[in-house]
Amino acid sequence: MTDDATDDATHDALVIFTPSGKRGRVPRGTTVLAASRALGVDLDSVCGGHGICSKCQVTPGVGDFPKHGVHVAGDALSAPNAVEARYERLRGLAPGRRLGCQACVQGDVVIDVPPESQLHKQVIRKSATERVMEMAPATHVFYLDVPKPDMHAPEGDFERLASTLSKTFDISNLHADLEVTSELQRILRAGDFKVTAAVHQGGRGAAPRLVTLWPGLREAPLYGLAIDLGSTTIAGHLVDLSDGQVLASSGLMNPQIRFGEDLMSRVSYAMMNPGGAAEMTAAVRVALGDLAAALVAEAGIDAGAVVEATLVCNPVMHHLLLGIDPVELGQAPFALALGAALDLSAREIGLGGIAPDARAYLLPLIAGHVGADAAAVALSEAPELREDLSLIVDVGTNAEIILGNNQRVLACSSPTGPAFEGAQISSGQRAAPGAIERIEIDPLTKAPRFRIIGNPHWSDDPAFGTPRVTGICGSGIIEAVAEMRMAGIVDASGLIGSAEQVGSDRLIATGRTQEYLIHDGGADRPRITVTQGDIRAIQLAKAALYAGARLLMNEMGVERVDRVVLAGAFGAHISPKHALVLGMIPDVPLEAVVSAGNAAGTGARMALCSVEARRAIEAQVRRITKVETAIEPRFQEHFVAASALPHATDPFPELARIVTLPEVAFNTGGDGGAGGGGRRRRRG
Amino acid sequence: MTDDATDDATHDALVIFTPSGKRGRVPRGTTVLAASRALGVDLDSVCGGHGICSKCQVTPGVGDFPKHGVHVAGDALSAPNAVEARYERLRGLAPGRRLGCQACVQGDVVIDVPPESQLHKQVIRKSATERVMEMAPATHVFYLDVPKPDMHAPEGDFERLASTLSKTFDISNLHADLEVTSELQRILRAGDFKVTAAVHQGGRGAAPRLVTLWPGLREAPLYGLAIDLGSTTIAGHLVDLSDGQVLASSGLMNPQIRFGEDLMSRVSYAMMNPGGAAEMTAAVRVALGDLAAALVAEAGIDAGAVVEATLVCNPVMHHLLLGIDPVELGQAPFALALGAALDLSAREIGLGGIAPDARAYLLPLIAGHVGADAAAVALSEAPELREDLSLIVDVGTNAEIILGNNQRVLACSSPTGPAFEGAQISSGQRAAPGAIERIEIDPLTKAPRFRIIGNPHWSDDPAFGTPRVTGICGSGIIEAVAEMRMAGIVDASGLIGSAEQVGSDRLIATGRTQEYLIHDGGADRPRITVTQGDIRAIQLAKAALYAGARLLMNEMGVERVDRVVLAGAFGAHISPKHALVLGMIPDVPLEAVVSAGNAAGTGARMALCSVEARRAIEAQVRRITKVETAIEPRFQEHFVAASALPHATDPFPELARIVTLPEVAFNTGGDGGAGGGGRRRRRG
Repeated sequence: MTDDATDDATHDALVIFTPSGKRGRVPRGTTVLAASRALGVDLDSVCGGHGICSKCQVTPGVGDFPKHGVHVAGDALSAPNAVEARYERLRGLAPGRRLGCQACVQGDVVIDVPPESQLHKQVIRKSATERVMEMAPATHVFYLDVPKPDMHAPEGDFERLASTLSKTFDISNLHADLEVTSELQRILRAGDFKVTAAVHQGGRGAAPRLVTLWPGLREAPLYGLAIDLGSTTIAGHLVDLSDGQVLASSGLMNPQIRFGEDLMSRVSYAMMNPGGAAEMTAAVRVALGDLAAALVAEAGIDAGAVVEATLVCNPVMHHLLLGIDPVELGQAPFALALGAALDLSAREIGLGGIAPDARAYLLPLIAGHVGADAAAVALSEAPELREDLSLIVDVGTNAEIILGNNQRVLACSSPTGPAFEGAQISSGQRAAPGAIERIEIDPLTKAPRFRIIGNPHWSDDPAFGTPRVTGICGSGIIEAVAEMRMAGIVDASGLIGSAEQVGSDRLIATGRTQEYLIHDGGADRPRITVTQGDIRAIQLAKAALYAGARLLMNEMGVERVDRVVLAGAFGAHISPKHALVLGMIPDVPLEAVVSAGNAAGTGARMALCSVEARRAIEAQVRRITKVETAIEPRFQEHFVAASALPHATDPFPELARIVTLPEVAFNTGGDGGAGGGGRRRRRG
Repeated sequence: MTDDATDDATHDALVIFTPSGKRGRVPRGTTVLAASRALGVDLDSVCGGHGICSKCQVTPGVGDFPKHGVHVAGDALSAPNAVEARYERLRGLAPGRRLGCQACVQGDVVIDVPPESQLHKQVIRKSATERVMEMAPATHVFYLDVPKPDMHAPEGDFERLASTLSKTFDISNLHADLEVTSELQRILRAGDFKVTAAVHQGGRGAAPRLVTLWPGLREAPLYGLAIDLGSTTIAGHLVDLSDGQVLASSGLMNPQIRFGEDLMSRVSYAMMNPGGAAEMTAAVRVALGDLAAALVAEAGIDAGAVVEATLVCNPVMHHLLLGIDPVELGQAPFALALGAALDLSAREIGLGGIAPDARAYLLPLIAGHVGADAAAVALSEAPELREDLSLIVDVGTNAEIILGNNQRVLACSSPTGPAFEGAQISSGQRAAPGAIERIEIDPLTKAPRFRIIGNPHWSDDPAFGTPRVTGICGSGIIEAVAEMRMAGIVDASGLIGSAEQVGSDRLIATGRTQEYLIHDGGADRPRITVTQGDIRAIQLAKAALYAGARLLMNEMGVERVDRVVLAGAFGAHISPKHALVLGMIPDVPLEAVVSAGNAAGTGARMALCSVEARRAIEAQVRRITKVETAIEPRFQEHFVAASALPHATDPFPELARIVTLPEVAFNTGGDGGAGGGGRRRRRG
């Protein structure tokens, strides 16, 4: 490649790459690709300079570049050669484009690397916060022209492939597992010893691994799976690893539910049944395999090109996935078996049927009760990058709570129980068509109107019709209780019909308590009510959530936060106003409450797309101050204090409709000890 | 530990360790163990200085040491402390012994490290060559006092264990697989967080791995398996990794035999039957598991303490073990899928039921036809350490041949076929009771006498009795053919009864050829004969073996070798004289023919006991010149030339009994083309 430059190679040429601005001198005759590597410029190349993959396309400039203080002559690069001509003929090159592996530097030159030729592409996240995410996946493809076997130098096919990778791409010490090795010879021969190798380099200090191999040059993208392994549902995204786009999303129920609805009952199952943990491990692994298959089918892609997965989950799910009995997580001191981030064989945890040695990355756990899902939220929301103080709440069966700014980040979890998800609520159900998701109660008539999932109309609109109303989902029950409080149907202590004599036919005595009738569907249809027990369940859940937040605020030494981020599927649907009415979260201006959507899933996607994101969250998890609610006496105090329903009115007067009741003090816990608030619930 | 030394710590003390002679200055108050580490002295310690394991016992000297130019005062070491007193009381210390982790250096001192305190013990091999083998196994135990879980610093149990290992023994970046991790919490708690960890550090550049874990201090040794995975039999030794002693040996038939007796028929089976290779892989892995269980049972040890295995095998067995279709090994260019040494999970290749993450080390293959078994022979026999030129022959279905000295080492394999093992011989059988293993033929009467396995008497001794004579084993057929040649029953071309009219009633016409009757057992008992076909099979086999040796000698540029080493089970039983009569091996003085016994098995044991041996054979395999017989025209020439039976007389007159026939030229191949010698056999 330096042949052309012999007559004019008396001194080096200046090369300036844009947009990076990286510059330096290289010997004339150096290819642009070699110059980019010498100067540390991010220029992609899959084929290693064979003029095949065209990933290294660049746009050379000609003329004066005052900004760079250089004039570029028309012959600063060698003329297009036969390889480029052939490429142009067969595939076409955009005007002005050159192949970086063919064009040689002959004089001072400014070379632009277009975005599609950058290995580490920047991708704008489509989420609310619109943070820029850099694509830096752990697995890349490399086109290898492997020497054929030679009886005089009988190295194995794998050793020749590894040595080609080392020579062409400077990636040495390649490892391959037996699954990949078993197909190696067939694929090498199918491609006449020209192959595209997917190589994983994401492990900390670990050797690069051959994940899979295709005959010839493969130009289609690689794919990855970002999986949020919840106690109840397992959700996955199939992501294009070239640009981070989600090609398919799917979810299924966690089959471990048959061993126990909540985490604590699964821990109990493992304790009571020999082999129980192994049963649950097997069940969740099968489900992961099913999820992967569903995602691949939905996206209509080649399963063998799925080379990676990232997983986020709480500690109990984490241990069960790995085949570790979670018994220690069910009792103090809640010791994790292992908490650091893990690079595993995807196959080993059930993700088979994808690339032979596809890797699975598990985000680090934060503490015995604060999982990799919380770490993923921390990665996605990155409170450590902001000056203002964020309180991030991810509500599931446990609430994970993160409080922090660019000075310090704290995390804890709080045992809210499943009430916020509509479980253990008399008319509760999961979010599904027919479930009440929005509700308003007239403070004067005490009459409700509501909306159900799958029907855009309010129930008092004739267009609502007579659909089957099946129950109340999580966001519906929160609105119902908050509205009942604002309408004077429950008092600050949470008692139905006692704060004043409500005297509504909506209140029905059941034994020694009353329940509030939201909807009577008539014969053969469910009668939807909110019972005294439902109110108590919500009080306990919200008190746990609020107490966790207050505990972190104490630890931080603050009395208020600047913003509240509601994460998770629940966070996406909850009404901030009603959450504030209930006292679920500390008081902030309504506009300071934002929904981050499925932040754990987003964090899983970020880790999937970028090894730098993995290193960032690993480091951040080590820095996070872990607060254990179970041993903090103040948590108990906050919990007792927080069981009252503080706001007898809408805390935002501009939004209030009618205020009929005197306000009670905010969260002073005056009469809040009632209704079981003093009973410390086990996390579940 | 430096508390005692504050008043006298103005300058460092001189410490001299024997027998290593390593010396240096350390601050007064340094423990002997710390001093040994600082000076690079090989002093064992399992407990990391807790005064528990007593592995670091030393014998300090007192008085004048003119050789070392030092006088040692009586108080050069601190007086025995409470830990040593307790150890002395509970377990006893030999007179003069101190615990290196407790005794502190207070003045110039000479300290002897007794052999049992050396981590890398030297063990004399019990074999013929009596080479010294250094014990340096890949897996060692470490006693760890792991901090208990702390809710305020919720690191996982594994992370705390790894960090203890790093702090106490300077072994960082510990990895653990899921199998080990799943038992971690139970074992830590059973030992109140004091555990003995077996850690594998044998991988080149690989992270140390937690192989298994015991509660408390475990003082019993670790064990390993050295396995010789042959085409026909799988032989294993269970070895004590503290001293290299073999505690049990066992063998079983390779179950792949049902898919084909020889390697080529197994390769064919894989080619003809979809899934055939996988069937054979599964079969051999089951057999390895059975072998491990048998060895553990025989030795009566704890299976969980078997932490390692080494395996040697030919390339086809190697690939089938790893789950690689061996089809490429059946055709030129005989490309290996992979040939370098491998560190694997033992479980992954069927060796389950031992330590959870026990490791398996596969020695490197040398070439497409020259396996890890040959590498093991090269390791065991180490021709590169000798000035004289050794020809090492390991005869199985293939013969592996190594030629070398301290200048250069060459290797090839030669397709002898199974005749030398008694297979494809009309009365042939495996070596088992009842098989003829020794035979002599009277040149005048042409009458044979013989011995059978399991009977110490010759057949012409009345004490022989009337046992059931079942066939002829490999060494028996070689002796039979050589004796037939010496007795004039076959001529140089290999024809029975034609060289001269033998006229013996032992010669029986069968169609157009004759056969020689060795034993007629009478009714219902086998009639043992040597047929013309048997002679031809032996001629082909010996010609292949001889041609391989000659090819290497050509390559080396020599006409003679200094010694011939017969390796393998066959090599252990073959009569050197008869091998020379047949022309199996080049002519050397009889005393220059030595048997190395099961050299491949010895090599496997050496690799098991020493990571340095592993590194040595890996480097040596890269240096060995590989010669491929299949593409060398000279091999064909040598093969044709070598099919004659050269010696019509005993080549060692002093051993001869009666010589009746004129000698023919040695290996000139004058009439050797007859009888199929020109037909190139496929390797099998």
